[in-house]
Amino acid sequence: MLKQERQLCSSVRTRAPLTAEEAVELASAFKALGDPVRLRLLSLIAAHEGGEACVCDLTGSFELTGPTISHHLKVLREAGLIVGERRATWIYYRVVPDRIQLLSDVLVPSSAAVTA
Amino acid sequence: MLKQERQLCSSVRTRAPLTAEEAVELASAFKALGDPVRLRLLSLIAAHEGGEACVCDLTGSFELTGPTISHHLKVLREAGLIVGERRATWIYYRVVPDRIQLLSDVLVPSSAAVTA
Repeated sequence: MLKQERQLCSSVRTRAPLTAEEAVELASAFKALGDPVRLRLLSLIAAHEGGEACVCDLTGSFELTGPTISHHLKVLREAGLIVGERRATWIYYRVVPDRIQLLSDVLVPSSAAVTA
Repeated sequence: MLKQERQLCSSVRTRAPLTAEEAVELASAFKALGDPVRLRLLSLIAAHEGGEACVCDLTGSFELTGPTISHHLKVLREAGLIVGERRATWIYYRVVPDRIQLLSDVLVPSSAAVTA
């Protein structure tokens, strides 16, 4: 087995399996990502200028109504993946870096997480 | 904004938003992870000695029947997250490192992915 393959095989929290409680909490976040529209919304928000976007910036990428987009944003918000801040007419959304990093680390521990 | 915060804010594929096709494919894998039992199964398999485990190694961690565990393993297998290999009586499962790494990179691009 190649060194890189060994390293990758050691992913998904090899140090200790997830507890039942951790799994319940994390699964709800992964479930929120288990929808193509929500995954694209998260990606669009992160890629948007300044790292934030309002519904007005997002609707053009979908053949969906504003309320439908808003519903998906609500699911992402309730999963802790994005936060919204109202400014004048619009709510501006940005991703929550620590939450995203946590999910990524559950799959493949970062070097910081491994050496911690 | 701190340097680390800036770096984390650049996660979730900032180079280019996911396409609709990419999102459909990836969302199916995240959906498979959106269940606490499946998330724990993936974690247990990765953490098991030699990086592989059979149903006989996994059932003890759950108050679930063998067939239920097998169903969840099938969902993980169909999502490309694990592979199974039959040896004598049992099928031995291991995680698919490239697939897991891909999902992790979608959330937080690895340094290799960023510089590629």
